[in-house]
Amino acid sequence: MAEYRVPLKDMNFLLHDVFNVGSLWQNLPNLSEHVDVETADAILQECSKIAEQVIAPISRQGDEIGVSFDNGKVTTAPGYKEAFKTYAEGGWTALGGDPNYGGMGMPKMITAFHEEMLCSADISFSLYPGLTAGAALSVAKHGNEELKQRYLTRMYAGDWAASMCLTEAHAGTDLGMIRTKAEPQDDGSYLVTGNKIFITGGEHDLTENILHLVLAKLPDAPAGPRGISLFLVPKHQVNDDGSLGEFNNVSCGSIEHKMGIHASATCVINFDGAKGFLVGELNKGLACMFTMMNFERVGVGIQGLGAAERSYQNALEYAKDRIQSRSLSGVKSPDKAADSIMVHGDVRRMLLDMKAKNEGSRALSAYIAMQLDIATFGEGEAQTKADQLVALMTPIAKAFFTDLGFESAVAGQQVFGGHGYIREWGQEQLVRDTRIAQIYEGTNGIQAMDLLARKIAGSKGAMLKVFTEEVKQYIAQTSSDEMQEFIVPLTEALNDLENITEQVLVKAQTNVEELGCAANDYLHLFGYTAMAYVWAKMAQVALAKQPSDDDFYQSKVLTARYYFARLLPRRHSLIATINAGPEPMFAIDEALF
Amino acid sequence: MAEYRVPLKDMNFLLHDVFNVGSLWQNLPNLSEHVDVETADAILQECSKIAEQVIAPISRQGDEIGVSFDNGKVTTAPGYKEAFKTYAEGGWTALGGDPNYGGMGMPKMITAFHEEMLCSADISFSLYPGLTAGAALSVAKHGNEELKQRYLTRMYAGDWAASMCLTEAHAGTDLGMIRTKAEPQDDGSYLVTGNKIFITGGEHDLTENILHLVLAKLPDAPAGPRGISLFLVPKHQVNDDGSLGEFNNVSCGSIEHKMGIHASATCVINFDGAKGFLVGELNKGLACMFTMMNFERVGVGIQGLGAAERSYQNALEYAKDRIQSRSLSGVKSPDKAADSIMVHGDVRRMLLDMKAKNEGSRALSAYIAMQLDIATFGEGEAQTKADQLVALMTPIAKAFFTDLGFESAVAGQQVFGGHGYIREWGQEQLVRDTRIAQIYEGTNGIQAMDLLARKIAGSKGAMLKVFTEEVKQYIAQTSSDEMQEFIVPLTEALNDLENITEQVLVKAQTNVEELGCAANDYLHLFGYTAMAYVWAKMAQVALAKQPSDDDFYQSKVLTARYYFARLLPRRHSLIATINAGPEPMFAIDEALF
Repeated sequence: MAEYRVPLKDMNFLLHDVFNVGSLWQNLPNLSEHVDVETADAILQECSKIAEQVIAPISRQGDEIGVSFDNGKVTTAPGYKEAFKTYAEGGWTALGGDPNYGGMGMPKMITAFHEEMLCSADISFSLYPGLTAGAALSVAKHGNEELKQRYLTRMYAGDWAASMCLTEAHAGTDLGMIRTKAEPQDDGSYLVTGNKIFITGGEHDLTENILHLVLAKLPDAPAGPRGISLFLVPKHQVNDDGSLGEFNNVSCGSIEHKMGIHASATCVINFDGAKGFLVGELNKGLACMFTMMNFERVGVGIQGLGAAERSYQNALEYAKDRIQSRSLSGVKSPDKAADSIMVHGDVRRMLLDMKAKNEGSRALSAYIAMQLDIATFGEGEAQTKADQLVALMTPIAKAFFTDLGFESAVAGQQVFGGHGYIREWGQEQLVRDTRIAQIYEGTNGIQAMDLLARKIAGSKGAMLKVFTEEVKQYIAQTSSDEMQEFIVPLTEALNDLENITEQVLVKAQTNVEELGCAANDYLHLFGYTAMAYVWAKMAQVALAKQPSDDDFYQSKVLTARYYFARLLPRRHSLIATINAGPEPMFAIDEALF
Repeated sequence: MAEYRVPLKDMNFLLHDVFNVGSLWQNLPNLSEHVDVETADAILQECSKIAEQVIAPISRQGDEIGVSFDNGKVTTAPGYKEAFKTYAEGGWTALGGDPNYGGMGMPKMITAFHEEMLCSADISFSLYPGLTAGAALSVAKHGNEELKQRYLTRMYAGDWAASMCLTEAHAGTDLGMIRTKAEPQDDGSYLVTGNKIFITGGEHDLTENILHLVLAKLPDAPAGPRGISLFLVPKHQVNDDGSLGEFNNVSCGSIEHKMGIHASATCVINFDGAKGFLVGELNKGLACMFTMMNFERVGVGIQGLGAAERSYQNALEYAKDRIQSRSLSGVKSPDKAADSIMVHGDVRRMLLDMKAKNEGSRALSAYIAMQLDIATFGEGEAQTKADQLVALMTPIAKAFFTDLGFESAVAGQQVFGGHGYIREWGQEQLVRDTRIAQIYEGTNGIQAMDLLARKIAGSKGAMLKVFTEEVKQYIAQTSSDEMQEFIVPLTEALNDLENITEQVLVKAQTNVEELGCAANDYLHLFGYTAMAYVWAKMAQVALAKQPSDDDFYQSKVLTARYYFARLLPRRHSLIATINAGPEPMFAIDEALF
């Protein structure tokens, strides 16, 4: 397996050349007091060392040995405890945190790249700090001062980790059905009782305490999602001086045996009258949890990208080394017994598919991170617009990046031929590890419904318009001849997206199933169109650097061309299947399946 | 996991209603002396019992425990030895064999369904008899009388298994590079020396002897593929009376640890001056091996279908049982806390994608099997035509069925949500097991080149014409109004396939890379078009049965509509990417990746 190398140059290209964070951050005063471009560069540089040298090396044994469970105790795989200690001591657990409580206040544009590095190095490892950072975000936004002083500071310090307790055996997507109960106590706390499943990092030995963010219902709560509240339930109670108090009746019943992410503990967590503290308002727990969930959804999207980048790097190294058969157009390496497989069109197809998807996903993820930063640190109209774009793009990041990421993991494995199926090469681990990203944190089908039904249809198309207006403005401003090869197909794709959205929304007025039947294809259509937008932006910057001695910019322009020639055309089939409507799906009675 | 149920009704529908084997077989005298429709039905019925009751139950522990290796000895997982014994005693190892040597002489239309059943039950198990049947085919066709009497009879009897020894560490696809040597001996035998990797069933404890079909080169052989000969090398020598003689210097060096098919032994096999016997003529070994390889390629295609059928059955059962959220168009099960997930458009999309692909793959596989039977048992022009169709369709069966099969395994896992990622449900095993089918027996990229470069371009389009003429004739004969919903898009797809073939062949005259760059998409385009042809045939038969009390026929018509509405349109994007040509792929220098 190739040694992982963080694509720092591509990250810097996006930050500085494409999205020009120097001037962006200066216009966001609450942000610019904490970060400048030099700090950002230094942070990414340091983070790349941790990812390459500390985390990537433990991934294979994490997969082979995995976490173990013995009588309620979870032991992480060899090396994880040490790696986490190094990571926490480096201050990385504070990276995106609220500076008032010990966080470093870095923008999402930095933390998103940091997340990508962790995921490329080892998705399993990334989940422990990833869940903690998401929980911290929710506590920082919705918790009271006492919760923040007592718990948030310790999460940022890397002392304590956190988990996200939503799912129950009978209630996965449908959270309205949960049964976990929270009974109010005289001291203002609650006693939480219930069983949660699929709890990532629900129990482990990396930190001395684990803070569970738990969805539960008061005994007299309204039925359904409107009766759900959010509680912070520590594994060990915490004394007033911050030291650990008594055990809080939170136990791990078992861990799951899974297809992949073997080094991530996926736990059954039992709350047996555990003391918990309300986060946010009663019965508004879902909204508070969504602060964490939306963070994690973008993070899971980045998992897809992380695995895909690793897959590309591995497959590229293998393809360059592996000699097998001759080029169709004549011998390329007469001194060798065969040419490298890089000469074969179909191998190039697989590698360039990966390259174009990865660089496109990274750019789109940086774009979404930028909107998140404007939404968090900006004000006025710009802030409102960014808020809408974040809402629109979150399901796309989650589902589109993970669908493409899985494709890239599989494609990289295919480049390896038979060796891709053998465990020792590590390539098949990427396929197994990244597969979960399409499922957890709301399946990709749920993301598609969130996009089309909740956001696009829910806003009667207004939320789409925020995006299309921005792209149209970009198109109008980009009139140079050399950019027309990108602008013309981008315009076509955008028009088609607008038209089909309108058609779907009209048809949904008479048959609402239209939305469910179109959702998956619609999300992909949107994804390819949005990715065309950021690819055009990247091509524009790279073309402006020509002529250049730096291969990077030439490669960027050529990869942009590849994207428009070979990936954007996937939209044609998606439009055809969206147009097919609900009839072919609902004409078939359940008994006829 | 749902209990596996063989889709016998669909198989019988294809045999009797769609392909009318009763009259087909009567026109093939060499075949009809061995089989009639009653025998065929009885065989499939019996075989379904073995698959459901004997083989399917061992699959999970085969995955969990796998094969083990100790000092050259391979032990299969618990239950495999007993299952193989039952299988062999039932006579199934003789099913497709030459009746002159103890085979049952059943047509491929029967044995292909038998293979599907085995693969749905357990791909790992299916590989042991599958490799043996392929080796037997090569020996039956190319071996001399002595080899047939001594070895073929014992393979049919299920006493001895066989393996296929092609790959060496440095030579996967590029067989011209192999180094294994065969030195002629005075008694007419050869001493074979060399190391082979990735040898499925190269060593195991299911049979007392294993016959290796080994590609090797004589010391003075011409370089490259034209110097390759094929040898039968038994693990134990065989005495004149058929009893086992001394050990033949064939040893297993290790087994691979793989992503899936854990119960299949993938071996490093070392030949250390092992006594071997020439199969066919000297230096024509590749052609003799291709008899086996083409058999296995169709068989591997069927592995994709087998896993996909299992995935569909599991996911369907889960979807019917799992209640979660309400239908978009209003509550469907007011007596339950939520509706079953069958009400959601996106779940139906995943299930119907699987259903339409599986029934389409089964029909296309039956069509190919029919051509194989005509090629084997027919004569004259019909035989010549069938030969061409088999050559054309073999790479499509291998690559298209396995690509669709993997998609269906993944889709079924997605229907399960988080449970699909947990090992105990068995669904993720299907994804891991079926992934190899896209890789081994010639990667799917190699299959695509075989189709487009070797067969279509190699015949200057003549081989394509054999297929298109048949479909055109069918279209011309199918003029009823009710069939036009299928005939019109089939005609369009066929015309597009013809046009783009012509364009690619013309462009390839000036730039041969055109072929390599188009190959993968072309194979899929061909696959979807060929599948539309068999779906039209199935729809026609099912429509003719209307009105009917039998849900089966109604389901068939509706699934055909689904195929034309939602799967055939994938061709639009494929045409666009084929049209993109080599420029986007080859403009990028290796250094710019």
